[in-house]
Amino acid sequence: MHLLDGFFRSPSVEPLFSDAAAVQAILDFEAALARAQARGGLISGSAAAAITSSCRADLFDLPSLAQAMPAAGNLAIPLLKQLNAIVGRNSPDALRYVHFGATSQDALDTGLVLQLRNATRAIENDLNAIAAALVQLTETHRRTLLVARTWLQQALPTTFGYVTAGWLDAFLQHRKRLEDQLENSLVLQFGGAAGTLAALGDRGTQIAKLLAEELVLPLPRIPWHAQRERIAETAATLGLLSGTMAKISRDLSLYMQTEVGELSEPPSTGRGGSSTMPHKQNPVACAAILASASRVPALVSTVLSGLAGEYQRSLGAWQSEWEVVPEIVRLTAGGTNQLAALLPRLTVHSEKMRTNLDLTHGLIYGEAVSLALSEKLNRASAHKLVESACRSAQFEKRHLRAVLSEDADVTAILKPENIASLFEPANYLGSAGTFIEAVLAAAREQLPQKPSGKG
Amino acid sequence: MHLLDGFFRSPSVEPLFSDAAAVQAILDFEAALARAQARGGLISGSAAAAITSSCRADLFDLPSLAQAMPAAGNLAIPLLKQLNAIVGRNSPDALRYVHFGATSQDALDTGLVLQLRNATRAIENDLNAIAAALVQLTETHRRTLLVARTWLQQALPTTFGYVTAGWLDAFLQHRKRLEDQLENSLVLQFGGAAGTLAALGDRGTQIAKLLAEELVLPLPRIPWHAQRERIAETAATLGLLSGTMAKISRDLSLYMQTEVGELSEPPSTGRGGSSTMPHKQNPVACAAILASASRVPALVSTVLSGLAGEYQRSLGAWQSEWEVVPEIVRLTAGGTNQLAALLPRLTVHSEKMRTNLDLTHGLIYGEAVSLALSEKLNRASAHKLVESACRSAQFEKRHLRAVLSEDADVTAILKPENIASLFEPANYLGSAGTFIEAVLAAAREQLPQKPSGKG
Amino acid sequence: MHLLDGFFRSPSVEPLFSDAAAVQAILDFEAALARAQARGGLISGSAAAAITSSCRADLFDLPSLAQAMPAAGNLAIPLLKQLNAIVGRNSPDALRYVHFGATSQDALDTGLVLQLRNATRAIENDLNAIAAALVQLTETHRRTLLVARTWLQQALPTTFGYVTAGWLDAFLQHRKRLEDQLENSLVLQFGGAAGTLAALGDRGTQIAKLLAEELVLPLPRIPWHAQRERIAETAATLGLLSGTMAKISRDLSLYMQTEVGELSEPPSTGRGGSSTMPHKQNPVACAAILASASRVPALVSTVLSGLAGEYQRSLGAWQSEWEVVPEIVRLTAGGTNQLAALLPRLTVHSEKMRTNLDLTHGLIYGEAVSLALSEKLNRASAHKLVESACRSAQFEKRHLRAVLSEDADVTAILKPENIASLFEPANYLGSAGTFIEAVLAAAREQLPQKPSGKG
Amino acid sequence: MHLLDGFFRSPSVEPLFSDAAAVQAILDFEAALARAQARGGLISGSAAAAITSSCRADLFDLPSLAQAMPAAGNLAIPLLKQLNAIVGRNSPDALRYVHFGATSQDALDTGLVLQLRNATRAIENDLNAIAAALVQLTETHRRTLLVARTWLQQALPTTFGYVTAGWLDAFLQHRKRLEDQLENSLVLQFGGAAGTLAALGDRGTQIAKLLAEELVLPLPRIPWHAQRERIAETAATLGLLSGTMAKISRDLSLYMQTEVGELSEPPSTGRGGSSTMPHKQNPVACAAILASASRVPALVSTVLSGLAGEYQRSLGAWQSEWEVVPEIVRLTAGGTNQLAALLPRLTVHSEKMRTNLDLTHGLIYGEAVSLALSEKLNRASAHKLVESACRSAQFEKRHLRAVLSEDADVTAILKPENIASLFEPANYLGSAGTFIEAVLAAAREQLPQKPSGKG
Repeated sequence: MHLLDGFFRSPSVEPLFSDAAAVQAILDFEAALARAQARGGLISGSAAAAITSSCRADLFDLPSLAQAMPAAGNLAIPLLKQLNAIVGRNSPDALRYVHFGATSQDALDTGLVLQLRNATRAIENDLNAIAAALVQLTETHRRTLLVARTWLQQALPTTFGYVTAGWLDAFLQHRKRLEDQLENSLVLQFGGAAGTLAALGDRGTQIAKLLAEELVLPLPRIPWHAQRERIAETAATLGLLSGTMAKISRDLSLYMQTEVGELSEPPSTGRGGSSTMPHKQNPVACAAILASASRVPALVSTVLSGLAGEYQRSLGAWQSEWEVVPEIVRLTAGGTNQLAALLPRLTVHSEKMRTNLDLTHGLIYGEAVSLALSEKLNRASAHKLVESACRSAQFEKRHLRAVLSEDADVTAILKPENIASLFEPANYLGSAGTFIEAVLAAAREQLPQKPSGKG
Repeated sequence: MHLLDGFFRSPSVEPLFSDAAAVQAILDFEAALARAQARGGLISGSAAAAITSSCRADLFDLPSLAQAMPAAGNLAIPLLKQLNAIVGRNSPDALRYVHFGATSQDALDTGLVLQLRNATRAIENDLNAIAAALVQLTETHRRTLLVARTWLQQALPTTFGYVTAGWLDAFLQHRKRLEDQLENSLVLQFGGAAGTLAALGDRGTQIAKLLAEELVLPLPRIPWHAQRERIAETAATLGLLSGTMAKISRDLSLYMQTEVGELSEPPSTGRGGSSTMPHKQNPVACAAILASASRVPALVSTVLSGLAGEYQRSLGAWQSEWEVVPEIVRLTAGGTNQLAALLPRLTVHSEKMRTNLDLTHGLIYGEAVSLALSEKLNRASAHKLVESACRSAQFEKRHLRAVLSEDADVTAILKPENIASLFEPANYLGSAGTFIEAVLAAAREQLPQKPSGKG
Repeated sequence: MHLLDGFFRSPSVEPLFSDAAAVQAILDFEAALARAQARGGLISGSAAAAITSSCRADLFDLPSLAQAMPAAGNLAIPLLKQLNAIVGRNSPDALRYVHFGATSQDALDTGLVLQLRNATRAIENDLNAIAAALVQLTETHRRTLLVARTWLQQALPTTFGYVTAGWLDAFLQHRKRLEDQLENSLVLQFGGAAGTLAALGDRGTQIAKLLAEELVLPLPRIPWHAQRERIAETAATLGLLSGTMAKISRDLSLYMQTEVGELSEPPSTGRGGSSTMPHKQNPVACAAILASASRVPALVSTVLSGLAGEYQRSLGAWQSEWEVVPEIVRLTAGGTNQLAALLPRLTVHSEKMRTNLDLTHGLIYGEAVSLALSEKLNRASAHKLVESACRSAQFEKRHLRAVLSEDADVTAILKPENIASLFEPANYLGSAGTFIEAVLAAAREQLPQKPSGKG
Repeated sequence: MHLLDGFFRSPSVEPLFSDAAAVQAILDFEAALARAQARGGLISGSAAAAITSSCRADLFDLPSLAQAMPAAGNLAIPLLKQLNAIVGRNSPDALRYVHFGATSQDALDTGLVLQLRNATRAIENDLNAIAAALVQLTETHRRTLLVARTWLQQALPTTFGYVTAGWLDAFLQHRKRLEDQLENSLVLQFGGAAGTLAALGDRGTQIAKLLAEELVLPLPRIPWHAQRERIAETAATLGLLSGTMAKISRDLSLYMQTEVGELSEPPSTGRGGSSTMPHKQNPVACAAILASASRVPALVSTVLSGLAGEYQRSLGAWQSEWEVVPEIVRLTAGGTNQLAALLPRLTVHSEKMRTNLDLTHGLIYGEAVSLALSEKLNRASAHKLVESACRSAQFEKRHLRAVLSEDADVTAILKPENIASLFEPANYLGSAGTFIEAVLAAAREQLPQKPSGKG
């Protein structure tokens, strides 16, 4: 583990992109290929068994691979040399069937797909945990009053549950995107040196089908080695997910400001301290999520730019994916991992939320008043009247209700009890509850049920 | 039309993002809102009619809007002032129902969605034309021999139809993505000042439903003003499409190199000339497509970064979408428009494709020979033997076939007629034909049928 | 003016990138070339005069240029056709000397350089205004107490003048970068069709020198048409400047939050209002600056990626600069223009700054106390003691001073008057004043002096 | 070494960004701080000596640091805990002076600066080697004829030395940029918790000066913890350098195409082979350089975006630099390392360069002919005449010279020997030689002289 891995990355995904895991993913392809060819009658079952039993990363000399890779130009070439040596020692007859009909890119691309499939599942686990925590927060705080802020200014009353329902809804959509990805983007690549499977004569598509079965991967209509849109779509999907995490962590960090104080990260010894200021409790999880998420959009653009590779196998563009795509996954998972840990332990200061609603001395109820007046006045006049009252309230440092109560134009229309009612935040939530219930209903339908006794 | 619009943009999409169109889209929202509220019984039918008849961009003073916009901070505010004035002149009673219950962002976001829907349909038209041209090229050239190139080096025989089938397959996937987008991403935004539709009391969700019907837009579970993932997904989808166009235009430009000469843009007077070199016929359509497509990935990253907006309406992030999202659409459409025009008129030099297959004096058949030898030798030995023959052929500037025919290790295994057959490109296409047919079948199923008599 | 130009762009820079200005910049190159060749004796003075007098954008048919540009592939080609026609009408003898020895890219690149030079000077004007406003703010508020915030949490006392001095220092550096740019990056491009000036025989470098003199541009050692680093450096420099503006506008917007309230945009009728909430005064200038600045980094990456153009004139990469580089300039200038207008009118609520220092009930003085204690205790013990007192103060909702005053470990070391002094923010500003003076001194040295009677 | 490090990164720079090196850089700051404070009389010389001797990375438990870092939120905090423990064991009296007056960010930022300084020097070494190789190539090939290509089409004759002189010139500029960077951007950060050096009372700036001396770093006017432009400038400078490498490696790879064949990577056993095609010699160094260089622009945009951090220490933005800035350096160095190794061993096929000049059967001399004709005809007529001859030559598959020699309009102006001379590439190089010498002269002036006996 590198020094910053715990900050930016996830323990559930890091092992999937270790050097050993990358090697094993390639070997999984090679072993499945041999088995598929045995099933297809191209090679013997014993040859396939010999190859399969040699396809274990722990048999490989990784430092030698690292050494040989740059001159070879890709990882599969020196890896296949080692694989040949291992198979040759154990089962010389099987040697001629190693990597039969495939090319390096088949092994590397399908290997990457296998890694991405595992990582997607790990991220889905985090999403389920995040969504469950958001369901909990939404249910608990569906009526917890909070001021909505627009342009960083207090706007109108809402509830904290409405805010978390918006986040939850975004994650429900992300879950669908990841499911689509598993179905449509993470598919077998198998085309041979030029995509035609020429080395397999007329048996190419049959073996491809069997190989897809072995790896439990969807089979595309045509090899995609030269069309990387599926990989880029995977990157973009994670970019969207990272964007949501950036949004939420930014919001969390704003709610946690000293001057706002509506949320805080759970206090714990030594967490978020300062090297010099004893009072500091920095929201370090928010910073970690925001930092990793803010790195992803540019990486996505690199992958999108890399689509413009040359001909049937590009020079530079394909190779640029090798670290960038894993990095996108790892950073995204770093964020989901931290958020899944943070949300269930988030401290909600609902009393501070309530207090902050009063900070503007009633200004945030201006719209409600304006609306009530517009039952009699036209809307522009009502807006103008309240706007002017707001300015007076600010200038005179008085409560808007007081200013309005002294305004004859207002009192001609609204009785004192009407005015009082307009300054009651719970009266001005509109459809918030309905929206919340709609999101919760969708969540209940989509999310895996917790085992009974835990929920 | 600006000086470079014809190069970078599309005549079918530009009008959708003119100033007048942006204004009209907002007005379409306002008119539909009034009609929805009339249907819901909130306002009278005559008020709705008065508002609707005022919602025509040609009644508006655009220079004044431009002047007032910066201080207002968004376009909807001065636009609503003008709308109020127009409605007020014609139908004072309707005035209080203009924009009733909505906020600026509702009008701006839904307006953008309406523009994006129209643009998506225009791009789909281009995609259909592109796909039809690729079907044509693929059918015509399914057996036109071409050398596959990897790492910019000649690799193996393939066919030009196989190459275009790969492009076609990518566009078939893009069509599906755009359809998904119309269904899932381009949905109504209607939430009022803070997303709660507070100004509509308990009628918010009913009006929202009617409004969605009026605009024929899907209705989301909860307003998305603060969660911009759908907009970002639209941007990313177009980023993927642009990536494919960058790939194809790069390939086209490489095939058009003086030294390759396998394709050319259709010659026409004055097209692609030079200000000084009389012989020049530059592939200007390829350059235009590549130039517009290469600008999109970074713009997508801007939209992804903008997801991290603050609270219920952000300061800076939302506003950054206003030009960037249209720019992504316009550049993408610029590319599809040029490609749709280029592909049907592409000149294919199939004789040059055939000639180029001989450039390496047989080296590109090395794999086929190696494979044939590995029926008797093990694969590593066969590979090594052919590798060494290849080096000799290059060094001695002889044809690989000649070198092999003199090698006793080879002739012990392969008869002269076998060797000759191995150097026949049509014999080494593997499953190319099957892959091509699979893509063509999918195209036939998915693409709209041309009216009879035209195909 | 487009609807959003007033928000995102600058009136001083927009005219420099109009269609007419782009045409004029190319014509300035052509006219200067003719004059240089006359001075060099290659063509007659009368020919040069005839060409120069024809090089006026108002003589050109811009819609025709727009129409012809896409097929030509660049703007210079149809423009030269029109120029030929104009010169031919007036002075047929001069016709053969139009564009003599140059290529389209020479005219386009040098034209862009001329536009960039003008724009750089316009931006420098804004920077001078910004810097002058920051000098003013820094001088006025060098001792205005403010809480420094780190990780969005209150940290320690500082002064508002210290904060603005940091901004000012950044702008002083940007001024230097722009000066460097004018000297090193914005240089003549003149190389002819392939960079060798072959069409001028052995007179190429002489004419180049004279041409540089005519345009008052530095002359590079070798043409740079194929090496675009200077253009990219210009883009990157503006990217840095935009970054500073994003930082400042983000900070301004945070200081303007309802809950912080330490700054506000100057109130003015209709400015920053809401379409529905009468009380709203949104910080629209901050949003505009942040929105334009946040779009620049990705555009810079496009220009950097475009460096990888092919051979002696690229296909796609060069062309992608044509709108992106101007866009970077225009967005940057949009930001500097808005910031130059905002800063002198910024409302500083120094009393609120002072009040906010008390929000934590003394916690922000924890470091000062810890330091005082560490004169006797070791630092870790002191830190721990104060940390624990901070937790108690928070838990018991008491002032840290009160908690400490009751702690025997503390009172054993610090007398009551010492403790009181530690909670005085003006006592804990360290070298703030010295840093401020250093920046102000540098500003006075670098900035142009205002005319007497105004400063 | 990770599996792909040899491909993407540099052995001279990797050790500078290891975990141990990052820790040591922080410790170098802490040790220098103690020494500076001893020199300033704030602490005793023996305390400084004790701290200095504890500041050795090999005394630290890195896995524990990695474990503790995420909760702490930055690396310096757990590192200081370990440092305190080490100092405490050896010299309890010194304990209270560890990190005295500094904050975590001072140590982290200055540590990063120290790493960047070392890396900059390592990259400068590569640049010197690259420049020396380019001087060699330029001198050797100043007259080696080559066709210049624009828009991927053959244009005019040039020389290979002219091409390499353009590359060389770019590297000479990069060397200057790196020197500027060492002088202006890589400077001390020392400001304490809020940038005011409050903990040092009135001694802050004195200690800062001594600390800068200890570390041999320039001292800025004011701490820059909240203004990250210098870091971003460093990133941008490396982005420019990476862009040049992308350009050169793209060009190299194009020159190495099978169909062009003008350059090749040095052949060596096993280098650039294929897992299946025995004849393949892929230009793997070009791919590696292009792949690493194409990843940098997006990373630069991340750093530029990160400038918009909040207040006096940001939440998310600063933290995003921690891996991104090193990554930019490492990828850039990966490219310079590979290019420095490749260029001296590049195989130049000058005979193929000469042959390729004839591929168009004389079309590339069209400009020369047109120019010669325009001595008598006007330029447009001459251009048109030659353009038409070019089309005939292509259509009839004849040499342009032959077509022209039969054209009465041409022969009326040009004698046969004139025509012949126009088709001689060496006659049409213009100022190429002068430009080459200017670049070589600058190189000789700027580059370090090789020890005598080697040059």
